[in-house]
Amino acid sequence: MPRLPAKSDTERISKSAYRDRADALRVALLEMQVRLRSSSLKAVVLVCGVDGAGKGDVVNVLNHWLDPRWIRSRAFDAPSDEESERPPFWRYWRALPANGQIALFLSAWYSDALRERAAGCEEHWLEPRLERIRRFERMLDADDHCILKFWLHLDKDTQEQRFRAFESDPLQQWRVTESDWVNWARHDRFVEAAEELLEATHTPACPWIVVDSGDARRRDLAVAEALLDAVEGRLIRQAGQSASEPDADRARAAGRASSAKTADAPAVAKLRTLAHQSYQRERDRLQGELNQLHHRARSAGRPLVGVFEGRDAAGKGGAIRRLVPAFDARVLEVVRVGPPSDEELAHHYLWRFWRRLPRAGGVALFDRSWYGRVLVERVEGLIDESAWSRAYQEINDFELQMVEHGTLMLKCWLDVSPEEQARRFGERKRVPYKRWKLTEEDLHNRALWSEYDDAIRDMLERTSTDHAPWVVVPADDKRRARLRVLEAAVQALSDHLDAGSTAEEPLASLPSEAHRNR
Amino acid sequence: MPRLPAKSDTERISKSAYRDRADALRVALLEMQVRLRSSSLKAVVLVCGVDGAGKGDVVNVLNHWLDPRWIRSRAFDAPSDEESERPPFWRYWRALPANGQIALFLSAWYSDALRERAAGCEEHWLEPRLERIRRFERMLDADDHCILKFWLHLDKDTQEQRFRAFESDPLQQWRVTESDWVNWARHDRFVEAAEELLEATHTPACPWIVVDSGDARRRDLAVAEALLDAVEGRLIRQAGQSASEPDADRARAAGRASSAKTADAPAVAKLRTLAHQSYQRERDRLQGELNQLHHRARSAGRPLVGVFEGRDAAGKGGAIRRLVPAFDARVLEVVRVGPPSDEELAHHYLWRFWRRLPRAGGVALFDRSWYGRVLVERVEGLIDESAWSRAYQEINDFELQMVEHGTLMLKCWLDVSPEEQARRFGERKRVPYKRWKLTEEDLHNRALWSEYDDAIRDMLERTSTDHAPWVVVPADDKRRARLRVLEAAVQALSDHLDAGSTAEEPLASLPSEAHRNR
Repeated sequence: MPRLPAKSDTERISKSAYRDRADALRVALLEMQVRLRSSSLKAVVLVCGVDGAGKGDVVNVLNHWLDPRWIRSRAFDAPSDEESERPPFWRYWRALPANGQIALFLSAWYSDALRERAAGCEEHWLEPRLERIRRFERMLDADDHCILKFWLHLDKDTQEQRFRAFESDPLQQWRVTESDWVNWARHDRFVEAAEELLEATHTPACPWIVVDSGDARRRDLAVAEALLDAVEGRLIRQAGQSASEPDADRARAAGRASSAKTADAPAVAKLRTLAHQSYQRERDRLQGELNQLHHRARSAGRPLVGVFEGRDAAGKGGAIRRLVPAFDARVLEVVRVGPPSDEELAHHYLWRFWRRLPRAGGVALFDRSWYGRVLVERVEGLIDESAWSRAYQEINDFELQMVEHGTLMLKCWLDVSPEEQARRFGERKRVPYKRWKLTEEDLHNRALWSEYDDAIRDMLERTSTDHAPWVVVPADDKRRARLRVLEAAVQALSDHLDAGSTAEEPLASLPSEAHRNR
Repeated sequence: MPRLPAKSDTERISKSAYRDRADALRVALLEMQVRLRSSSLKAVVLVCGVDGAGKGDVVNVLNHWLDPRWIRSRAFDAPSDEESERPPFWRYWRALPANGQIALFLSAWYSDALRERAAGCEEHWLEPRLERIRRFERMLDADDHCILKFWLHLDKDTQEQRFRAFESDPLQQWRVTESDWVNWARHDRFVEAAEELLEATHTPACPWIVVDSGDARRRDLAVAEALLDAVEGRLIRQAGQSASEPDADRARAAGRASSAKTADAPAVAKLRTLAHQSYQRERDRLQGELNQLHHRARSAGRPLVGVFEGRDAAGKGGAIRRLVPAFDARVLEVVRVGPPSDEELAHHYLWRFWRRLPRAGGVALFDRSWYGRVLVERVEGLIDESAWSRAYQEINDFELQMVEHGTLMLKCWLDVSPEEQARRFGERKRVPYKRWKLTEEDLHNRALWSEYDDAIRDMLERTSTDHAPWVVVPADDKRRARLRVLEAAVQALSDHLDAGSTAEEPLASLPSEAHRNR
């Protein structure tokens, strides 16, 4: 394996060169993810490295470039009490991705060993732990997990410069703590321990990828390209193994063909024309503001739950993706609500949402939500009238419990016109990498437009409560819709963070039965 | 609703009268559970009441009388940190049963309100909480949850006598704490608060059932009979609602017909002849011994994991049921491992077992387990050879991680001969309430007897490790097998509790690769 570079290369790649590579990469990454999702492969990405090298930034960038609905990010801080009552690897097991998903883990199972080794632990303490790690990774690798292990590196001087730069920026100074400086003083010992650990766990199936993090842009490109190559390669190998199955063959051929297109000028150019100067400026400003509020919410321990509903092609996914960069990906989960799993089907319909509620300071953005009960389930006649008509109050109660607990709530209805929806469906048919988004179901739902009208009206009337009001966002203009969603998020956080946690005065606001069933 | 009795009726029902009623009840309960399992109904049983009335005992009895594989019991002590970071009802939501299951909850969502009211909280604090409870129960009731709320009552004098009796028995004195006596002094205020709460939450759909607990036997019978009636009634109502579906009709007719048989003398007599004096004495002795060890394990915070494997009809379920009475049902889970759910299928095969590992002091008994990987999945060719051959080491690693964490392990292989299996299959065909246990699959597996021979031999050889050895139990004689399993459990606990937690010296015993793959 490559040694850790003694000197970081801090020369910056130009903004335009970066953007060219990034644009092409993002298209390729999204296409890779489409293929990944229909496979039994799971990607586990470990982001390790020295402090200040940007582990969190890399996770944020990947969340932004990829479709976050199939990503789960996790930092592993001090174990919760439920975790510490089980064997140490329990917390990693519970966070492992399902088929087609990508897990982004910070440090994870290397952090203990690294810390202890740098602190001078004995060989006989370390060796069995490394053996455990090797076996764990080998086992996952053998069972269709594609494991990527990144080591983000900085030399001591560059690390110092990075810290100083953070400290001089009021928006970033929270990133440097006293213990960062203590660790910095021990940089040499830490790097020595890291080299030893990387060497010992650099296996053919799960090699380390050392990324010089002297320049953030080069670092992000290097990580994303390595991820793309590794998953693509694994998908091809897997397709090759099951080459006798004609389906897999076709999928593979389709995958490669569309991947080959990623370098084409048109696709890239298309992305470029979408970018609009004033939109970008406003978007960046709002994301920055939201990010500030997010840090306040985190330190106050208040969770954020965002609900995004709208007809097909209303732009829910796009709006969510514009929110993602404002949050620390380590505490963010984007929950894509599709058909329930069989375990979920065997429980009360709200159970699947209760189980996804974020912890203190965490963020969950729901792409579709519990409102499916009074939308699709009502319109399709999956449940009878008594079930969906009592759901309004059940949902209001559910949201009230969150708000009383101190949760910050944001509910956006993205309102698209039938004409614009038709236009977007047409576009999806034409653009190859959007084609997978257009399903039979979308066309079927379109036929039920007026039935949905009733259901939507009832929903907005009966579940727009004081504690969790709906924000209706006109969605025919995508850019304006995205800015409106960002504004609504900023509003929701600033209003309620200033008001203080309602948890101090719990249940006081439980509205009367009569009021809530208006 | 009935007022709480001012004077407890402590007259004891005779042992023989008790046994007659209990025997008939147990058959009826098991039959009810069979029908429940094939329905979309879920039973939620709340066991509340004054200290010393035997809330824990009632949960233990129900676990013993019913098939524990479809029961989940939970006490709600101080919330874990993961729980306290979510709205207060999150912990109840995550414990709600799935279709066909029964949840036994101690106090649960009434404990806070009761304690606070007895301590003199204000009306305006209490009322919204009661309203929340009423709504929650109404919502569950509307969605196929059958809710039973038991209030176990004792008057002040009887409560005192109960405590004194516990204190004078060395095996029971752990049950009385100082705070029990403090609460006892406040008995009147507590009863007043309870009456108020019961009154306020006694709704038509979810009424309270007050059970005079002056005599433990009458108490247990009253609870079990009320549970039987309520679930039976609900199943009939449900069948009536979907009477247009011929399947439901047939199921209902079958259910009632077989239920009608429960009063028949033969079925009850059969149960009686199984009971054999010396077997019973030995069983009770071992259960008592195991119970003592269980309390030591609990206070040491050490989890217990039991694995029960064996061919069809080897008596795994029966052996597990004889272990259940030795454990506190509030920390016990019997995990029946059937086909994986779709969420489980989308993960690594060990993921579904990791997620069921017990917390500190908890007990999980697995009826079938991760060994399915090297048994059914190997024999049926569900996975290729490379997958099952690497599973031996993966399983050894998994178990080692548990043991190093301090988990007490018990692995029993119940060894039944082909002749005895054939006899049991024949019996299942004849006895009506055993018939549901005999499936096509059982007969199919029988045809693969010799393929299983190889798989079983390899499994016992390659996964009998120092840290988690197999106990092979001859199973043709059911009674001897059950005693042997009890002995093995006693042995496993006493050996390792005496040796102290291996967690103090973690990972020291990780055997070399060569040794483990012998």
